[in-house]
Amino acid sequence: MNKSFVTWFTGLFLFGQVEESMALEFDLIEMYFAPLSQEVEAVEMGIGDDGAILNVPENHQLVVVTDTLVSGVHFPENTEPYDIAWKSLAVNLSDLAAMGATPASYSLALTLPEYSEDWLRAFSEGLRDLSAQFAIPLIGGDTSKGPLTVTITAQGWVPNQQAILRSGANIGDVICVTNTLGEGALGLKLALNDWQDSFAISCLSDEEQCRALNALNRPMPQIAMSADMRGLVNSAIDISDGLLADLGHMLHHSLARLKQGAEQGGGDFVLGADIELSQLPLSSGVAHYIKATQDWSLPLSGGDDYQLCLTLPEQHLSKLTERVAAKGVRLSVVGHIVKQKGIRCLKHGVLQEEGMFEKGGGYRHF
Amino acid sequence: MNKSFVTWFTGLFLFGQVEESMALEFDLIEMYFAPLSQEVEAVEMGIGDDGAILNVPENHQLVVVTDTLVSGVHFPENTEPYDIAWKSLAVNLSDLAAMGATPASYSLALTLPEYSEDWLRAFSEGLRDLSAQFAIPLIGGDTSKGPLTVTITAQGWVPNQQAILRSGANIGDVICVTNTLGEGALGLKLALNDWQDSFAISCLSDEEQCRALNALNRPMPQIAMSADMRGLVNSAIDISDGLLADLGHMLHHSLARLKQGAEQGGGDFVLGADIELSQLPLSSGVAHYIKATQDWSLPLSGGDDYQLCLTLPEQHLSKLTERVAAKGVRLSVVGHIVKQKGIRCLKHGVLQEEGMFEKGGGYRHF
Repeated sequence: MNKSFVTWFTGLFLFGQVEESMALEFDLIEMYFAPLSQEVEAVEMGIGDDGAILNVPENHQLVVVTDTLVSGVHFPENTEPYDIAWKSLAVNLSDLAAMGATPASYSLALTLPEYSEDWLRAFSEGLRDLSAQFAIPLIGGDTSKGPLTVTITAQGWVPNQQAILRSGANIGDVICVTNTLGEGALGLKLALNDWQDSFAISCLSDEEQCRALNALNRPMPQIAMSADMRGLVNSAIDISDGLLADLGHMLHHSLARLKQGAEQGGGDFVLGADIELSQLPLSSGVAHYIKATQDWSLPLSGGDDYQLCLTLPEQHLSKLTERVAAKGVRLSVVGHIVKQKGIRCLKHGVLQEEGMFEKGGGYRHF
Repeated sequence: MNKSFVTWFTGLFLFGQVEESMALEFDLIEMYFAPLSQEVEAVEMGIGDDGAILNVPENHQLVVVTDTLVSGVHFPENTEPYDIAWKSLAVNLSDLAAMGATPASYSLALTLPEYSEDWLRAFSEGLRDLSAQFAIPLIGGDTSKGPLTVTITAQGWVPNQQAILRSGANIGDVICVTNTLGEGALGLKLALNDWQDSFAISCLSDEEQCRALNALNRPMPQIAMSADMRGLVNSAIDISDGLLADLGHMLHHSLARLKQGAEQGGGDFVLGADIELSQLPLSSGVAHYIKATQDWSLPLSGGDDYQLCLTLPEQHLSKLTERVAAKGVRLSVVGHIVKQKGIRCLKHGVLQEEGMFEKGGGYRHF
C-alpha cells in the first residue's frame, strides 16, 4: 500500500479509540481518494507531501475559493453521497466560473460520522465524475470524525487583471442570467416534499421532477463559458442565494466601487435594478408551479441555481450570446441596471408589490 | 455595515431557524474577521467577492496546504479559542515551512456550535497575532453551525523547482531537527493531567510547565528559516506525528523515489535511519521527565512539536547551522540516513530495544 494518502489524512491518526480499525480505513481512503489525484502537467506534486506544488501559467493571477456544505443545512440529510460530493465541488467551481477563472485543482476537508466503504466509494465517484470534466486533480486535504461536513477549497487561474468582479456593474448595463432559474429550489421542494402552498405535485411530469432534482443535486458550474465573459462583461456573480439576493450583492459592491471613485471626483451615486418577470428563463416545471401558485419565489429567491448573473453594456450582448451559445449556454436578458435605489420587479412593465417574493424557495425553510 | 463579509459567510444564510439573530451574528463576524483581511500588495482582491485574487511572484510555484483541527480530537475541548485559532493556522504554516515555501495567504472554514462574541473575539485575535508575524491576510472562507471544527487552507510560493520534499533523503545524509523535541507532548500531558507513569508533576518548575503548555497551544511554525534550507537540504518534514513517525514518512517516500529511479537504472535499494538518543535536543522539562521515567516517548513519538526534521549532506551542515542561527533557530544533528531497513535508536552507540518507544505521547491517548 502506498502510504502517501495515509500521511495526508493525518486526522485519522488521532481518533484514539479506533486504532484497530485504522488500517482498514486507510485502505478505503487510499483506494477511493488517491485515484482522484490524477496526473496533470500543471501539478508538480499532488498528494503525498506536506503540501501540493502547482506550476503557474505565465501572466496569470491565482483565484482561491472556499465553500463548506453541512448535512441538514446545505443539503437534505438523505442526499446521496455521490450528489454530496458533486455539489460540494460544483459550488466551488461555480465561484471560479463567476470570476472568469479557469479551475486548476482542489483540496478536500471531509468530516465523517463513520467510515462506510459504500459511502466513500459513492462520494469519491461524485468527485471523480465532476472533476474529470475539467481535468482538475485533488491535491490534498484532511479527514476527521464528526458530523458530515465537506469543505472544498479550489484554485484557479485568470489572465492578469481580467478577473470579473461583482463590483463592476454600471448604470445602463443589461442584466443577463444563464439557462433557467428556480430549478434548484423546485428540486428542494421535491426532496423535502414541501408544498405549503397546496400545489399539486401531480402538475409536474416525471421528467420535470427528475430535472428539478438533478438541478438540486448535481448543479453544473458554468466553467465552460467563464473565459468567454472576459473583455465583454462588467460584473458577474453565481446565483447561490437566489437572483434577488445575489443581484443585491452585486449592486451593493458596485455602488461601493462608484462611491469610492466619487470620493476623488465628487458626485452622488445611486444604483438599482429593474427586473422583468416575463423575461425570466423558466423550465417547464418551474413555469407550471408559478402558473398554479402565482408564487415567483422559486426563480427570484430560491437559491441553489448556480447559474450566473452578469451585467454588460448592451453593445456586447450579441457577441457574448454567440460565444456562449457555442458552449450550449442560453443567455437571457432579464433587466437593466438603473439609476434608482433598490431592485424593482415588473411584469410586462407593471411594477409588482414589494415583499411578494420574500417567501424564499431555498434552504431558509429547512 | 460593509456587507462583504456577510456575503462571504454564506453559510450563515442557511441556518433557517435563527434568522432573527442573524444580523447580530453578521455584525460579530464582520467585526472580528474582516480586519484579518489586511491589505497586502500581493492580494488584488481579498474577502468580498466569489473568490480572492492573488498576484503571482515571477518564476515561482504555488504551494497549497490544508489541515483540519477537530475539538476533542486534535486539541483538548477546554482549549482557549485564542489558542485554537493560533494552532489551526500554525500547523498549516508549518507545512509550508517544511516545503521551503513563503506563506502568502490563508482561508478559513469554521464550524461553530454557537455564536459567542467573547469566543469569536478571542479566536480572531489568535489568527491576527500569528498571521501578523508573516503579514499574511485572510482571503476568504465560510462558517457554519456544528461541532467545533477549524479547516485552514494556506497558500505559499516557492521559487521554481526549489521546493523541499520529504522524498529527497539520501544514504549518508545527516538528520537534523530544529530547537527541542517532546515539548508539545509534555504540554498535552499537563493539559490532560495524564501521568500514567506515576511521574511527579512537582519535578517540573512552573516555568517548565508554562513552556510546555505554550508549545502545545501556540506552536511557532519554522517559517523564518524555510528559505534558508533551499539549496542545502535534501528533504524536510514537519514533526506533527512524532519524530519516528515523521522520519518514517520521509524514509518511505525517499525509498519510493530511489526505487523509481532504479526502475530505469537497476539496483536494489534499502533506506533507514540511525537515531542517537543522547543527541536529541530536549528542554529541561522533557529532560526531567525522561530522567524520572526512562520513557523516551515524548521526543520520539509525541506529536505536536511542529519543529522541522531535515536531512542534508554533511558538508552543508555548517552553512545551514549558521544561516538558521541568525534566525534564532538551533539545529541539532540527531542521526544519519543509512543503508539498512528501519529506524534504529541508539544510546551512546548502543542499540536500544525495539518497541520501547511505542507508548506514544501525542493525541493517540485521547
